[in-house]
Amino acid sequence: MSILVTGGAGYIGSHTCVELLNEGYDIVVIDNFSNSKPEALNRIKEITGKDFKFYEIDILNREDLERVFSENDVKAVIHFAGLKAVGESVEIPLKYYHNNITGTLVLCEMMEKYNVKKMVFSSSATVYGNPKSVPITEDFPLCATNPYGRTKLMIEEILRDLYISDNDWSIALLRYFNPIGAHETGRIGEDPNGIPNNLMPYITQVAIGKRERLNVFGNDYNTHDGTGVRDYIHVVDLAKGHLKALEKIMDNKGVEAYNLGTGVGYSVLDVVKNFEEATGQKIPYVITERRPGDIDKCYADPTKAYKELGWKAEKNLEDMCRDAWNWQKNNPRGYD
Amino acid sequence: MSILVTGGAGYIGSHTCVELLNEGYDIVVIDNFSNSKPEALNRIKEITGKDFKFYEIDILNREDLERVFSENDVKAVIHFAGLKAVGESVEIPLKYYHNNITGTLVLCEMMEKYNVKKMVFSSSATVYGNPKSVPITEDFPLCATNPYGRTKLMIEEILRDLYISDNDWSIALLRYFNPIGAHETGRIGEDPNGIPNNLMPYITQVAIGKRERLNVFGNDYNTHDGTGVRDYIHVVDLAKGHLKALEKIMDNKGVEAYNLGTGVGYSVLDVVKNFEEATGQKIPYVITERRPGDIDKCYADPTKAYKELGWKAEKNLEDMCRDAWNWQKNNPRGYD
Repeated sequence: MSILVTGGAGYIGSHTCVELLNEGYDIVVIDNFSNSKPEALNRIKEITGKDFKFYEIDILNREDLERVFSENDVKAVIHFAGLKAVGESVEIPLKYYHNNITGTLVLCEMMEKYNVKKMVFSSSATVYGNPKSVPITEDFPLCATNPYGRTKLMIEEILRDLYISDNDWSIALLRYFNPIGAHETGRIGEDPNGIPNNLMPYITQVAIGKRERLNVFGNDYNTHDGTGVRDYIHVVDLAKGHLKALEKIMDNKGVEAYNLGTGVGYSVLDVVKNFEEATGQKIPYVITERRPGDIDKCYADPTKAYKELGWKAEKNLEDMCRDAWNWQKNNPRGYD
Repeated sequence: MSILVTGGAGYIGSHTCVELLNEGYDIVVIDNFSNSKPEALNRIKEITGKDFKFYEIDILNREDLERVFSENDVKAVIHFAGLKAVGESVEIPLKYYHNNITGTLVLCEMMEKYNVKKMVFSSSATVYGNPKSVPITEDFPLCATNPYGRTKLMIEEILRDLYISDNDWSIALLRYFNPIGAHETGRIGEDPNGIPNNLMPYITQVAIGKRERLNVFGNDYNTHDGTGVRDYIHVVDLAKGHLKALEKIMDNKGVEAYNLGTGVGYSVLDVVKNFEEATGQKIPYVITERRPGDIDKCYADPTKAYKELGWKAEKNLEDMCRDAWNWQKNNPRGYD
């Protein structure tokens, strides 16, 4: 009996594969390497000392995906595969909708065919849009402000409809806040294509000398220092949340959403300061214009995940900064 | 230069093809006959005395769809193809999402590839969910209450994102109220599979003796006679709205939604009474329980379509009843 991990070579996928293998799960991984590298799979094996089956396929290809289900005894799916860059989603929305939504539909159809009705889905705090207040609980109104966010929100709705149509399904919607950091070994981590969209990989690329300085988008937000406040969570904590969610869905039925965050908000400048202290690296920055759509503050109320999954984030911002830097320093060009 | 009509053999599609041909347009029709009959195409030719190119393909099949674009000089698309039964959408949501959303994505990708950026899309008043008041204007909040409705709402959002990504697109979202009736010749009309989901085909099947009596779902709604009030529109009026929308998008860019309704609400019992008067057929009925999700009243404010498209419905409820009965009477088993 195996856990199928789609997008298992990606940033969060690879860290989750490590935790799954460490906990003794058999896993089958699929990835099309559209935004990840084969080397990540070698590193997962190196860290865990364990092997697993891998298929280089695209979940949009029904025949390829069917082969995975027919050749393995899949008992649940952790579904990471999807495109994730907000800006790019505005530029090429059809590709985002097709990859994320159609990809999930094809996957669900195959799961239905093979009677595999347990899924942990990679959702995002982006489904809260511009939240009316913080901290955010799972029952806040949902709303998306860009195509990427809409794909996540639509998939959540599709999965709820799927459960209504067939109450045998058991689905956890994991709403990630801002995952950063890397595995403590420094062997796997975030390896973005091109200019990073997110804060931490940008900071580490400044630290390594690949970028000159950090752009801080606006310092007139309604926060303690004027820069945007987010809920950063160590990717290993996040990965562990998937295991807790997996345990939960194996024993239950229904669709439940869980915030995976620390419940603590840090500003951009807090992160910069913490990074400098944790690593001894200086991060020059400039204040630039606000990015359209950015909000003041966004952080989770992670109580539900604690109460229902028995999960909470253990690592602090210093851990996140140290591990992010350890990864970047040891892999200045990512997996290349 | 041709107008491509997807789902052109269906109920609204076939009536629109007639109007397009009568107005001198060249059309190319595609249909997979999943919920329509080839005979409808013969009838369109018979009514208009004109021929057109037809492809029996599924828009989900990219290669087949590409053939249509490569073999024809398509200048705009009227996109009807999609599944439309609310109850069925609750039972088999994946099929609805896949057909309607993925189908539209594949179509849009092909349109983009062949630089055809003009579309009239079959949306629905269902995107207003349970409206806060009546009449409904296009700027009412949008919300869907079942998978079918969500496919329409999601496609509207996808098309808006498509325009944001490329301002060359010109798209009309036509929000249909309740189309009934048939072409005055009685040669094309609604031919539902199995038990009709909608009022008028149920009434005509009772009149023809195929069903014993009409079920009226609830008589304690907040309306003049307790039965639900809807905005019934003659399908030929609706078809003509597509021609007006087509003219509009040929000269404009952007995405605009238009209500296609009469602006007048009739109750279930109003329709029964009008049908009996217009046709001389007695319609026995029983009052049964409310259907979950049904609302008191739903009717359009059609002002925007009148102002911006120069379109308004011309036919009254008597016309709708007479033409529906004429179709049913002359085609007791539909197209079979």
